[in-house]
Amino acid sequence: MAHEKTVWPGSTQLAPVPAVLVGCGNGKEYKFNLVTVAWAGTVCSDPPQLAIALRPERYSFTPIVRTKEFTVNLPSVKMTDSLDRCGVVSGRDHDKFALCGLTPVPGEKVAAPVVAESPVALECRVTREIGLGSHTLFIADILAVQVDSALIDDKGKFDIDQAELVAYAHGHYYTLGECIGHFGYSVRRKPGNVIRK
Amino acid sequence: MAHEKTVWPGSTQLAPVPAVLVGCGNGKEYKFNLVTVAWAGTVCSDPPQLAIALRPERYSFTPIVRTKEFTVNLPSVKMTDSLDRCGVVSGRDHDKFALCGLTPVPGEKVAAPVVAESPVALECRVTREIGLGSHTLFIADILAVQVDSALIDDKGKFDIDQAELVAYAHGHYYTLGECIGHFGYSVRRKPGNVIRK
Repeated sequence: MAHEKTVWPGSTQLAPVPAVLVGCGNGKEYKFNLVTVAWAGTVCSDPPQLAIALRPERYSFTPIVRTKEFTVNLPSVKMTDSLDRCGVVSGRDHDKFALCGLTPVPGEKVAAPVVAESPVALECRVTREIGLGSHTLFIADILAVQVDSALIDDKGKFDIDQAELVAYAHGHYYTLGECIGHFGYSVRRKPGNVIRK
Repeated sequence: MAHEKTVWPGSTQLAPVPAVLVGCGNGKEYKFNLVTVAWAGTVCSDPPQLAIALRPERYSFTPIVRTKEFTVNLPSVKMTDSLDRCGVVSGRDHDKFALCGLTPVPGEKVAAPVVAESPVALECRVTREIGLGSHTLFIADILAVQVDSALIDDKGKFDIDQAELVAYAHGHYYTLGECIGHFGYSVRRKPGNVIRK
């Protein structure tokens, strides 16, 4: 099999990545604000931690550095316009919640705002701040998760398909498509096993 | 608008995330191996850097710590079976390349193996290693990117849709679905503008 490759200099080609609305501020010295972040990822399962990377020149940078708190709000497909807008306009010039018709609600564990319309929101407290170049990485504990109750079934199970999450790849937003397997399916699969579609 | 929330303790609910085949080893003291990683993300644009999180008990942990090199291979949909398998079986017991019918090719910039069948592979060198609990975070420079030449058009543009990438969310693998916008579309959109579907 031929697999001819073109070799490029290093670049940020990891994809798909999440694209999330990061909520920051405390409603006092730092007004509630939103910033779209695609450089985000889970970094530890126990204790649960994630990381976001932000350019220091972003308006949201100082509130996060000072309050050491933020929220990560997963957008549903119908929030894609807001998701994109919050990555392009600045909180210096706009009240992004008002601009996008989104509702800030203080977190249960942090003062930073949860986006009420998001199907899933993670409340985070910064533990480490690492300057890497264009971006500073904030590693944070995930203190609480708020899930839209309408997405939780009678058995307490969260139906992620109903959340209609958004993926980001090379400058484009995508819906999640077909479910093509669950973790461990390749070794547990037997004839007749049904993979959820 | 009512948005009733259920509040859970913190957990790793960020989604979708990438699911990638991390290649490690140098073909000498450390045999070529693969490990599936979903706790991965871009962390800096300039210089380009990404991070992966790995449990120290994983067989791939020591080679990465010692060689300070790894590759991040983005799987296409047809590689999902291998992607899943490399997250479940251990390199202690298996030659995962042989098991999955995948071809290791040394990187251009690192000795760690690129998966020839992957549409996109990123060659990485570790710059920081941070123990966070269950997982250790490896922050790495992206030294080179190998793209399947068949995915690059006459103008040198990489057609990501043809790569058929895979997203991971809450234990399930997904295709990328419909393209619902490009970065900046919300503010640049005019009547008649066509969003790529």
